[in-house]
Amino acid sequence: MKTVSTKDLVKGIISGDKRLLGKAITLVESKKPEHRIQAEELLKEILPLTGNSIRVGITGVPGAGKSTFIESFGKLALSKGKKVAVLAIDPSSSLNKGSILGDKTRMEELAKEENAFIRPSPSSGFLGGVANTTFETMLICEAAGYDFILIETVGVGQSEVLVSDITDVFLFLKIIGGGDELQGIKRGIMEMVDLIFINKVEDENLNKAKNTKVELMRALHFMPSKEKDWKVPVLLGSALNNKGLDEVYARIDDFIQLKIKNQTFSETRRKQQEKRFDYWVQEYILQKTKENQSTETFYELHKKNASELKANPSSEAKIFVDRLFNK
Amino acid sequence: MKTVSTKDLVKGIISGDKRLLGKAITLVESKKPEHRIQAEELLKEILPLTGNSIRVGITGVPGAGKSTFIESFGKLALSKGKKVAVLAIDPSSSLNKGSILGDKTRMEELAKEENAFIRPSPSSGFLGGVANTTFETMLICEAAGYDFILIETVGVGQSEVLVSDITDVFLFLKIIGGGDELQGIKRGIMEMVDLIFINKVEDENLNKAKNTKVELMRALHFMPSKEKDWKVPVLLGSALNNKGLDEVYARIDDFIQLKIKNQTFSETRRKQQEKRFDYWVQEYILQKTKENQSTETFYELHKKNASELKANPSSEAKIFVDRLFNK
Repeated sequence: MKTVSTKDLVKGIISGDKRLLGKAITLVESKKPEHRIQAEELLKEILPLTGNSIRVGITGVPGAGKSTFIESFGKLALSKGKKVAVLAIDPSSSLNKGSILGDKTRMEELAKEENAFIRPSPSSGFLGGVANTTFETMLICEAAGYDFILIETVGVGQSEVLVSDITDVFLFLKIIGGGDELQGIKRGIMEMVDLIFINKVEDENLNKAKNTKVELMRALHFMPSKEKDWKVPVLLGSALNNKGLDEVYARIDDFIQLKIKNQTFSETRRKQQEKRFDYWVQEYILQKTKENQSTETFYELHKKNASELKANPSSEAKIFVDRLFNK
Repeated sequence: MKTVSTKDLVKGIISGDKRLLGKAITLVESKKPEHRIQAEELLKEILPLTGNSIRVGITGVPGAGKSTFIESFGKLALSKGKKVAVLAIDPSSSLNKGSILGDKTRMEELAKEENAFIRPSPSSGFLGGVANTTFETMLICEAAGYDFILIETVGVGQSEVLVSDITDVFLFLKIIGGGDELQGIKRGIMEMVDLIFINKVEDENLNKAKNTKVELMRALHFMPSKEKDWKVPVLLGSALNNKGLDEVYARIDDFIQLKIKNQTFSETRRKQQEKRFDYWVQEYILQKTKENQSTETFYELHKKNASELKANPSSEAKIFVDRLFNK
C-alpha cells in the first residue's frame, strides 16, 4: 500500500474523495502493527465527525434478494437527499478467494451514484481468526458524511451476530418458502430482528406471502420483546419492483425515534462499543505476543506441543499463558 | 454442579456410564477457573484414550434433514457394531434460550440406543464471546469408546467453520431447491466440503435431483481440490427412507483411508489442534485479566472509556494492552 499521510487521508475523507476514503478503509482493515498505529491516529482525528448515521444491518438467506434490496433501498434514500454507504460482513472470505457467483454485477446502478459508496468485505484473516473491522470502516464512512450505512451479511460465519453487534436496526429479508416457513429461519435470527421484509411478493403469490406473514407474526409472538413498545413489523413488497420500500424507510425511522425516546439508542451503541473494546483487547494481546522475541519462542514451543496427536491444546495454552503473565 | 472427583469421572467415562459422561462434559464446558483446573486434570487423564474415532461434521440449510440424516446414519453405524456420539455446535445458543421448533422430538430413536449418546449444544457465553468446547467434548466421547462422533451445525453463527476445524470429514446435506441451485449455498461451504448428500430424493423428483447433482458437480469443478486424488462425491438418497446411506458410509471410509495414505489425516488433526491452542490462549488470557485485581480495574476503566459515544474502542484497547504488558 502506498503511504498517504494521516492528514491527507482525513482531508480526503472529509472532502468526499472516494479514492482516499477507500485507502483509509484499507488502512484500518490492516493488522500490520505499523498500519495499526496510523489507523489509530486516523480514527482519533475523525472521531468527532462520527456517530451521525443510521446503521442498518441486513440479513436473509442466499437468494432472498439482499443485493437488490440494498440497491433499491439505497436509491430511495438517495432520492431523499441522503448519502448511502454499503458495507458487507463476510467472515468466510479468508477461505474463498472469490465467491461462487461473483460480485461483479452486484448493485451496479447504486455504485454509479455520486452520493453512494460501496465497499466489498475484506479478506484478511489473523491467527486463525477473522478480520473484523467493519465497525471502524463504518466510522470512516460516517466522517465522510454518509447518512445511511447499510451493512449486509454475506457468506458462512457468524455474520448475523457481527452485524447485529454494530448496527442500530436489524432487517431480515424473507422470501416465501415452500414447506414449513419457520424451518427456513436460522435459530437466533428472530431474536435479533427489528423489522422483517417479505421480498419478491407479486400479485400471483400475495396469498402465500400473507400466510408467511401470519406464520412469522405467530413466531414473533413467542419472542421476548427486544425494544419496549416495538412490535416487529412484517412488511410485504418487492425490492426489484420498488414496492414496499417507502414503508421500510418509514418504519426504520419510527424505530430509531422510538429508541431515542426510550433512551436505548445511545445505550445500545455504548454496549456495542464495549464489545468492540473486548475484540481489540484480544487482537492487541495477540500482536504483543508476536512482537516479543522470548514470548514468541514460548508461543511456538507450546503450539508445537499442542499439535502432537496425543496432546491437549487447552493444557498447553494454560501453561503458555501462565508463563506469559509470570515473566 | 455437584462435585465428582476426577478419578470417578474418568472411571465413569471408561466404564460407559452415560450420567458421568454427561457430568464430565458439563465440566469441560464450564469457564469457571476452578472448573477449568479440574477439566484440565480430567483431559490429561483421558488423553491416551483419545483420537480413535472418525470425526464427522454435518452441515446443511435448516430443513435439509440433518437430524433425520444423523438418526438414520447413526443407526446404520450401530448396526455395524459401532458406537455413535452426536454433538452439536451452536454458537447462537447464548442468544436464544430454546429453539423455535424445540429439540424434544429430535433423534428420539437414536437416543434410546445403548451404544448411542446424544449431547445437545452448550449455552454459555463468555465476555461477549461464545463457548466453544465441542473439541474437548469430543475427546471425552472418544475416551468413552465412541467410534463415530457426528457433529452437527446448528443455528446462526460461524458453526460451519467451527465444525470443519475439528472434524476429519465434512458432509454437506443438500435438498433439491427451486430456482438457482447455487444461490442456496452459502459462500465458503463448497470449499470445506468432502462429501455431498442430496437428501429427500424420491422417484418423483429423481430428475430434479440429478439436475441438482450436475449443477453441484459443475460448481465443484471450479473449486481447488482440498484433498489430493479426491473428487467430492455427490450422492443421492433419502435419510428418512434409509436410501443411499450405505454409500455415504462407504465413501466416508474411502476418504479416511485416502487421507491416511496421503499422510494428511494426522497432519490435518495437528493443524486443528494448533487452532485449538490459539483459542485457549485467548480464553486463558481473558481469565488472567479478570483474576488480577489491578488489571481488572484498568480493564473496567478502559472499557468504560470505550463505551463513551465519541470514543474509539480500539484505541482504548491498545492503551489497556500496552499497560497490561508493561506493568
